[in-house]
Amino acid sequence: MVFTTNTVSISQGPDPRSLIQKERAESKFNPQKMQYFLEGSKERAELIKQLLQQMERDPILFTDGSYYDFTKDQLRALTATKINRISRYLEGDSIDVFNRRLSLLGVFDPAVSTRIGVNLGLFISCIRGNGTYEQLKYWALDKETATIKGIYGCFGMTELAHGSNIMGLETTATFDKANDEFIINTPHIGATKWWIGGAAHSSTHCTVYARLIVDEEDYGVKTFVVPLRDSNHDLMPGVTVGDIGAKMGRDGIDNGWIQFSSVRIPRFFMLQKFCKVSRDGEVILPPLEQLSYSALLGGRVMMVLDSYRMLARMSTIALRYAIGRRQFKGDNVDPDDEEALETQLLDYPLHQKRLLPYMAAAYVVSAGALKVERTIEETLAELDDAVDEDDDAGIMKAIDAMKSLFIDSGSLKSTCTWLAAESIDQCRQACGGHGYSAYNGFGKAYNDWVVQCTWEGDNNVLGISIGKPIVKHVIAIEDDGKVVKGSSDFLNQLKDYTGSNGSKVILNNASDISDVKKIIHAIEIAIIRLSYEAGKTVRKESFDYVGAELVNITKLKAHHYLLSEYVRRVDEFDDSELKPYLYKLAQLYGATMVLDKFAGIFLTFNVASTGAITDLAKINIPQLCKEIRPNVVAYTDSFQQSDMMINAAIGKYDGDIYENYFGLVKQQNPPKDHKAPYSAALEAMLNRPSLEQRERFEKTLEAGEILSK
Amino acid sequence: MVFTTNTVSISQGPDPRSLIQKERAESKFNPQKMQYFLEGSKERAELIKQLLQQMERDPILFTDGSYYDFTKDQLRALTATKINRISRYLEGDSIDVFNRRLSLLGVFDPAVSTRIGVNLGLFISCIRGNGTYEQLKYWALDKETATIKGIYGCFGMTELAHGSNIMGLETTATFDKANDEFIINTPHIGATKWWIGGAAHSSTHCTVYARLIVDEEDYGVKTFVVPLRDSNHDLMPGVTVGDIGAKMGRDGIDNGWIQFSSVRIPRFFMLQKFCKVSRDGEVILPPLEQLSYSALLGGRVMMVLDSYRMLARMSTIALRYAIGRRQFKGDNVDPDDEEALETQLLDYPLHQKRLLPYMAAAYVVSAGALKVERTIEETLAELDDAVDEDDDAGIMKAIDAMKSLFIDSGSLKSTCTWLAAESIDQCRQACGGHGYSAYNGFGKAYNDWVVQCTWEGDNNVLGISIGKPIVKHVIAIEDDGKVVKGSSDFLNQLKDYTGSNGSKVILNNASDISDVKKIIHAIEIAIIRLSYEAGKTVRKESFDYVGAELVNITKLKAHHYLLSEYVRRVDEFDDSELKPYLYKLAQLYGATMVLDKFAGIFLTFNVASTGAITDLAKINIPQLCKEIRPNVVAYTDSFQQSDMMINAAIGKYDGDIYENYFGLVKQQNPPKDHKAPYSAALEAMLNRPSLEQRERFEKTLEAGEILSK
Repeated sequence: MVFTTNTVSISQGPDPRSLIQKERAESKFNPQKMQYFLEGSKERAELIKQLLQQMERDPILFTDGSYYDFTKDQLRALTATKINRISRYLEGDSIDVFNRRLSLLGVFDPAVSTRIGVNLGLFISCIRGNGTYEQLKYWALDKETATIKGIYGCFGMTELAHGSNIMGLETTATFDKANDEFIINTPHIGATKWWIGGAAHSSTHCTVYARLIVDEEDYGVKTFVVPLRDSNHDLMPGVTVGDIGAKMGRDGIDNGWIQFSSVRIPRFFMLQKFCKVSRDGEVILPPLEQLSYSALLGGRVMMVLDSYRMLARMSTIALRYAIGRRQFKGDNVDPDDEEALETQLLDYPLHQKRLLPYMAAAYVVSAGALKVERTIEETLAELDDAVDEDDDAGIMKAIDAMKSLFIDSGSLKSTCTWLAAESIDQCRQACGGHGYSAYNGFGKAYNDWVVQCTWEGDNNVLGISIGKPIVKHVIAIEDDGKVVKGSSDFLNQLKDYTGSNGSKVILNNASDISDVKKIIHAIEIAIIRLSYEAGKTVRKESFDYVGAELVNITKLKAHHYLLSEYVRRVDEFDDSELKPYLYKLAQLYGATMVLDKFAGIFLTFNVASTGAITDLAKINIPQLCKEIRPNVVAYTDSFQQSDMMINAAIGKYDGDIYENYFGLVKQQNPPKDHKAPYSAALEAMLNRPSLEQRERFEKTLEAGEILSK
Repeated sequence: MVFTTNTVSISQGPDPRSLIQKERAESKFNPQKMQYFLEGSKERAELIKQLLQQMERDPILFTDGSYYDFTKDQLRALTATKINRISRYLEGDSIDVFNRRLSLLGVFDPAVSTRIGVNLGLFISCIRGNGTYEQLKYWALDKETATIKGIYGCFGMTELAHGSNIMGLETTATFDKANDEFIINTPHIGATKWWIGGAAHSSTHCTVYARLIVDEEDYGVKTFVVPLRDSNHDLMPGVTVGDIGAKMGRDGIDNGWIQFSSVRIPRFFMLQKFCKVSRDGEVILPPLEQLSYSALLGGRVMMVLDSYRMLARMSTIALRYAIGRRQFKGDNVDPDDEEALETQLLDYPLHQKRLLPYMAAAYVVSAGALKVERTIEETLAELDDAVDEDDDAGIMKAIDAMKSLFIDSGSLKSTCTWLAAESIDQCRQACGGHGYSAYNGFGKAYNDWVVQCTWEGDNNVLGISIGKPIVKHVIAIEDDGKVVKGSSDFLNQLKDYTGSNGSKVILNNASDISDVKKIIHAIEIAIIRLSYEAGKTVRKESFDYVGAELVNITKLKAHHYLLSEYVRRVDEFDDSELKPYLYKLAQLYGATMVLDKFAGIFLTFNVASTGAITDLAKINIPQLCKEIRPNVVAYTDSFQQSDMMINAAIGKYDGDIYENYFGLVKQQNPPKDHKAPYSAALEAMLNRPSLEQRERFEKTLEAGEILSK
């Protein structure tokens, strides 16, 4: 019998703790080694552990179940307190260590990491991307912004009536030659800067995206550093800010709106790496317009890593619960055995199919996140070097790499953030009613997360803008025999799989599906045929007409990138004992997240046969789930997310779901408070006099007789 | 130029208001008449308008944008105040009028309607379903529960370790023959009653589901009325309650947990319509066990209606925004025209495809909701009559009808609540960043809504339990030539479409898809073939093995019910002018919500050809969207949801999205509060002394020299 802390038990209660401990003891592989794979190296894994330990023990940064009871106002203040605390670590961290710290913090308190990220990620990245080295040094280092001191920056891109279409922003920066100043102005309500993180209460400065106007000519959108508040934190003249107020989530962030009423800044507050205005009003334009938006790239890349950690966190909670929770007696129970316990949730094939793909996705996405993170670091360094050395060829090469990164990061950002959002929703549902309790983490996770699908490149807009060049490539291959380079080079197979080869089937049966490399090849052919078909429509109609197809192409492109990189990493991984366990997840990911989800496309374009799709449902998926099932505890333990990061009563390491959950509920809501503060009003309602009495007996028969006389 | 209230404009701002007004003026049909179709009759539509007017003008019941800024504690108290107010209307309402009122209230303040619904819906329904007429009269009328007076009831079904498996509940009700009492007891933590709405602070009584134990024999789960609090609202001895605390949504409800420690109730507190215990301890059992759970049926039926209103509300917000919002210059703009305005969001084919299906779904679901609501009223009345008259044949007939209702209401509840949840998420995303603002309604709508997918029958569990009898029917038709009756009678076509007829294609091309009756037939064949295939697997494996297929069968069954009933209603509708507009929505619903979503199944089982599915994407869906597009304002106006019900700044009737939104943001967050309450701490961080100074210069070179000596 289990010792229970929360009640006196007079009969045997449920014992989820033993279930998880037993399965943990029987694991076939070592989660510690698996963790090295997930984080890329032993060194990185250990750094992460050190950083987590510092934060878990820190009296201010630590997060627990009480987090779920804070109001917006409390979260705002608490977030500021945490930023203050973090700034002290920052004074000692290298920038790499600090980024790692911030990324981890984002798992258990995303509002804090965003509120810092806007300052150090977006504000400084904008200056880095658009300013000269001296401008970067001045604003970031000399003025101590980089250690959250002196200046607090915000990022003034979006406006009330303009989000995705940055080129259409309407705030103006008019050059006043006489005074050698720019006049920043908000011409009308639609141009009000909107959603600006930190603007409401924190920021002292803003990198403002505004139309450069010189001598009445509009040179398009450029970037300017505009002070919002002085060193006393009082608003500058002409600056109006306000609080955006209540949001779906991330309550800790003081998102704001800004209106500029003819605010004057010196000419040298313009960021001028690529565009300058001389004292005389001569404008020197950038070689490549979109470089000014490179500030967003870093955020997109970070969101792929965030998606990995979210997938890991959600699947860990739901799977631990599914191991400890029993429900009904399934087909694995002898119906004649009256004493038999109910079946563990995770022993139902449907429950496996609902949850294991998200666990597999965490593994697969981790590999893609590491790769794209490495790529951006290299690319930005190359660009900076080339600019410093005035190396034009180097600049153009880095710009090419940046374009390719735009495709990869955009397709990954949209696909992975959607996938993570879906995992939160599905994992919550898999925990039944308890998934709806705030203390199990799903609600806040969802509300905080889903903005990732919208900000810094709306997922659908990204889907279109990445699908479009792919279709253009295909049209160019068809028409001009173009040869595509880079991560989309598989498109060059076009003529082997379209036209008279348009019905060549790649996946014929269960055996083909179990070969991940065949699945990867099938994704290529699906992209080719879908793009080819979309291209035909584009010739007759327009790109707008095939928007839905473009989004699907982008998703498939991301799955191709992720699965290819994951398999490559598994192939080269030096721990051969782990390889089969890793490979099985690739198979499950391919079978569920790609083939099952896009079955309509794979069938329509003859990439898979109907036999293959039947086998998928009847053979591959159930079989893979069954093989993965025994090691689920080890697979999820490998994420090494501590109880603080998990922050879900039913998802703790010890698996003691009911005691942990009930204990937290009682701690946060002491049973002695069994009368509500408003109980008197409630009791007055229940004990109210009769309707007749409250109507002063005016409608009674007696009254009727008098009043009718 | 637009007159702007929120800023002084110096140049032309956006003018969304004119866009919606222009489209409204150009509408091709009358939304008022369409409203009669949606609500079933002119009378019903007018009743709804009267009830809404009463509530909109009521100083306590009225809801506006400030709703989104309340804390949990504020919402709890406000909800109680609203219940008090509602109770006064109730004293004058007929039960039908009151149910209608409560259903409308559920659109703009779901916590209030749930908190009342638990009392009047579940508590009283449980007594109605399981108690004798005298028991119902005593508890509901004589004790005035039905007017929320004297007694406040809650519904004690689920336990911490038991949700879906009601038969496995562990609370005990042991008969104490000596004292003629039952002893209600919670044996261990897992049997703690959990999620009980109203238990934390409101309820005086609970209908408790507990195992009946007589002479140490366990007779399974029965129902008992157990007082929790006395008339002073003090807890009864042996009763412990607590607050469940923070949830994902519905903060206004005081969900609680209850533990009973040998609580004694008189024998006659047992509900005994179908099961009695005599003074001597003799147990008379019910003819059909599951009848005791009929309390949940009413709630499921109500959720279909809720789904209609949610689909209508969400699509109205997102579509009004999509009409007023401009973004990029699409293919419909002359690229040479520099003065051209950006394209309205809703003129992009992708945006149409993303949103119009939810609007169509609102129409289609409305028809199914009306039908299933009518069915339950008739069935319950028949059952009550038969029981009153001791008419055994009548009871059995009503029980058959109840079984059929279980199938229909369960498949509709799960499918429609999922669909509504999806619509909230998708409509929010379609509004970009503004969808994430609390003031536009999506966040709270989602958080309040998604519990509908879990409570009163988890959607996946329902999916399995409804798919299973369908597959069993198919097996019985195959093996024994069984003939199926009722709403699944189409299964009798089994042999015409399986075996050697297994590849007969129903939908061949765009023309077939445009025929809704062919789509309905195709759904039948898809259900038949999927069930037949699942049946083959069941013979080899088990029902658990095909859980995912069972859920899909259930979804298709619901779509079949909805689409059939909708088409039937349209066919018999007396306004022939509206028919083409109604029919077009059925086509779009069939094309998107059925064929596009289940393309994998339709292709795998040869119900549709690949050519048909290609046409679907290239021809049918874009064409239907284009035809529906001009009347979107009229279609959404037809829902006649007032601005209070919509409660979204960007979704108001006047379409003045930016002014309304900015105005509300300013009202709730006055710009004068541009320093946060915690600003001093923030400023202290920014203006903190240098690290060296804070370290008391202990790490300086000078200190180093001294300390190294």
